[in-house]
Amino acid sequence: MEFITTRELKERLSELQGQEVSLRGWIRNHRKQKDVCFIDFFDGTCFRNPQVVYDNSLPDAEAARALRVGSAIVVTGRVVPSYKDPETPEIQATAITLEGDCPEDYPLQPKRHTVEFLREIAYLRPRTRLFQAVFRVRSVAAMAIHTYFQDRGYVYVHTPLITGNDAEGAGNTFTVTTLPPEKAGKYEEDFFGKQASLAVTGQLEGETFAMAFSRIYTFGPTFRAENSNTKTHAAEFWMIEPEIAFCDLKELMDLEEDFLKAIVKTVLEKCPDELKFLDQYSGGGLLEKLQTLLTSTCARVTHEEAITILRKAMEAGKEFKFEPKYGEDTAKEHEKYLTEEYFHSPVFVYDWPKDIKAFYMYQNDDGKTVAAVDLLVPGSGELMGGSQRETRCELLEKRMDELHISKEDMYWYVNLRRFGGCTHSGFGMGFERLLIYLTGVDNIRDVIPYARTPMTCDF
Amino acid sequence: MEFITTRELKERLSELQGQEVSLRGWIRNHRKQKDVCFIDFFDGTCFRNPQVVYDNSLPDAEAARALRVGSAIVVTGRVVPSYKDPETPEIQATAITLEGDCPEDYPLQPKRHTVEFLREIAYLRPRTRLFQAVFRVRSVAAMAIHTYFQDRGYVYVHTPLITGNDAEGAGNTFTVTTLPPEKAGKYEEDFFGKQASLAVTGQLEGETFAMAFSRIYTFGPTFRAENSNTKTHAAEFWMIEPEIAFCDLKELMDLEEDFLKAIVKTVLEKCPDELKFLDQYSGGGLLEKLQTLLTSTCARVTHEEAITILRKAMEAGKEFKFEPKYGEDTAKEHEKYLTEEYFHSPVFVYDWPKDIKAFYMYQNDDGKTVAAVDLLVPGSGELMGGSQRETRCELLEKRMDELHISKEDMYWYVNLRRFGGCTHSGFGMGFERLLIYLTGVDNIRDVIPYARTPMTCDF
Repeated sequence: MEFITTRELKERLSELQGQEVSLRGWIRNHRKQKDVCFIDFFDGTCFRNPQVVYDNSLPDAEAARALRVGSAIVVTGRVVPSYKDPETPEIQATAITLEGDCPEDYPLQPKRHTVEFLREIAYLRPRTRLFQAVFRVRSVAAMAIHTYFQDRGYVYVHTPLITGNDAEGAGNTFTVTTLPPEKAGKYEEDFFGKQASLAVTGQLEGETFAMAFSRIYTFGPTFRAENSNTKTHAAEFWMIEPEIAFCDLKELMDLEEDFLKAIVKTVLEKCPDELKFLDQYSGGGLLEKLQTLLTSTCARVTHEEAITILRKAMEAGKEFKFEPKYGEDTAKEHEKYLTEEYFHSPVFVYDWPKDIKAFYMYQNDDGKTVAAVDLLVPGSGELMGGSQRETRCELLEKRMDELHISKEDMYWYVNLRRFGGCTHSGFGMGFERLLIYLTGVDNIRDVIPYARTPMTCDF
Repeated sequence: MEFITTRELKERLSELQGQEVSLRGWIRNHRKQKDVCFIDFFDGTCFRNPQVVYDNSLPDAEAARALRVGSAIVVTGRVVPSYKDPETPEIQATAITLEGDCPEDYPLQPKRHTVEFLREIAYLRPRTRLFQAVFRVRSVAAMAIHTYFQDRGYVYVHTPLITGNDAEGAGNTFTVTTLPPEKAGKYEEDFFGKQASLAVTGQLEGETFAMAFSRIYTFGPTFRAENSNTKTHAAEFWMIEPEIAFCDLKELMDLEEDFLKAIVKTVLEKCPDELKFLDQYSGGGLLEKLQTLLTSTCARVTHEEAITILRKAMEAGKEFKFEPKYGEDTAKEHEKYLTEEYFHSPVFVYDWPKDIKAFYMYQNDDGKTVAAVDLLVPGSGELMGGSQRETRCELLEKRMDELHISKEDMYWYVNLRRFGGCTHSGFGMGFERLLIYLTGVDNIRDVIPYARTPMTCDF
């Protein structure tokens, strides 16, 4: 017996009309009428699921009627036009056999469960429509990111996850050790002979490869031991960090904008059914937001200009919990105002106050700002953070001294400026932030397969 | 000024002949004759590098002659036919300017360095021809893997790296903690409220997604705290773990073979220059090995048959350090004999003795073996390890009890067999093992950007 997937069924639907096919998958719902029964069938290869229909003429119809929600089955039947929707296949079953049973108390019943409950059964939630949509978008978006960079000659680099550096993550890192508790802290006896932690970024190592391949990107997990229980923080998440030699801040913004549009375009093309579902799920506006992005231009303002806009809004009566101030960071509510109320589009905010940004950013001539840029997007705030890197060795070293970052430990990073250094820039994008933007699902716990957050490390 | 990359130069070479172009990159070598000078120029976007030629008519020729190896430069010049190789572009320079200088004591001089020395300067080695080849193959192979699975409808799943499970990795895992040394071991006060470690596999979580999407794969880092200093062991490496519902052991072998051939084919097509270089570097035979694979069929033998072959060889005079025995694991030398001397091809060895394999493998009717399969390849030994999974709940639980694996902690894994379970199979492939096979480079430290091994965690 030749089997096809529901994805093949959808793709070859007109050709298969009237033909007999065999499918393997699971029962999402099973509705029984006196003469005819309906199975909502899925195998996860396609968001649009066929309906399996059978009546009492089916051999062993009694056994079929007893099949429970959640069971794995093998279905053979004829493809017929669906009376309710020409694009949704219907299978007139001639045989249905049970592959794997499922008990009555199966937690996933065909009703709307809360996302909180579904997190408790995270190992089953990918079987629901919501998570079929979310995790397929996740997979398609990941591939779109790889394709974008590879098509443009970028080299994919796996930067290390275990690191002896602590340059960026002071205080926010997980320690990695093989020492038994009684030897804790004796790092010279530890696996690596020194204190090691989980990386908070691959950027610094990424720069070493950009100085060899010109254009590189990373796509890997990153870790923050931040004790914050918010909708956007997780202890383990995936990051994309491209780094480009001979690229300045302006060109970096061009790249970020082109990149974001390309990813959105691909996901819109490859996941129309999923996005339609997510649009409804998230209350509408998602599809419009994504489609609008493709034809609009992202706004670009300096940090100073952004603060001026925010202060004017405040003076005109807009209420903020935190006052927007020159020289200081912006708050979520400020980002929300800029993207959703003022510009109605993603916004690049660049030239940030030096004192609130990282040591490796290019110091502008004004002596106050650095060539850093944050991309803010409607609905999820900061999506990408990037900068032109400081290439002048003496300025970099001075900044490291000021911030008590060891030039000796980081000699290799400093040396990149000595050994054929060049203007270069890069950005980081949290993959889950992108998914929140793409799916309208607003909690990071629901866009990652198994979320790790304070006090939670299940499955 | 419009810049092009050396990759664009190669791709558009015939169209660009006679045109003026501008390039940005680095000096690998600089040979100066009385009247004419040659710069081996690279920007890392292409393995085939143009030669930049200039003579004393160049404006500021003296400054150009002073340019040192390792410096970043901007070159403008006319594309002319190369006298030595029609496919290698030559640039007749009309302007060369220094972007970033490099001192005389730059460690990477244009001579053959040992790989041991290059490991010490791992942050510079991607600039060498060897590592330009290795790390581009790494990137191209990674993309080939994603493309293979995505083209076939597999969903890419990011399984968690930090885990509370210890099912597979007992004793070989890194602990992840935020506890200060004085509180070491008080895991109830730790970040996750329990002991957490770095994952040794994503398979178990992968199975939960295969039971929802039918076909999934993982591609992410994996960790082993194994204190072994061999050429094939690293504490941090990348793994690919596909998992397929409604797939048995035979179909799994078919998939593995098709997958391997597809990756090899793509790398042969996309990295011809890199592989030619690596073929010479590794002493020849690499290209032939890879090309032969495409047209041959992998051998398939049971573990018992493999031992019989090995014992017959031994009886015929073949010397092994370890005696091949029924019911026991094979040694590296046995794998080498099977692939390189007996079959001259990759070999699937399947139906392994149950006692030396993992708890989740399908127990064959003979009561002695499990439906596991190892794929052995010439030159790098075991490349993939897979199995049909045990789907019978009572047999799985019995095996877990025998091996003292907690059914309570792993309730979710066991439940996959209760809630619509089905025949399913999957394999794991160490990405660096694949790269050793693809590049002929025989040490894992040289196919990963920054290797983590016992007592080594640099950069």
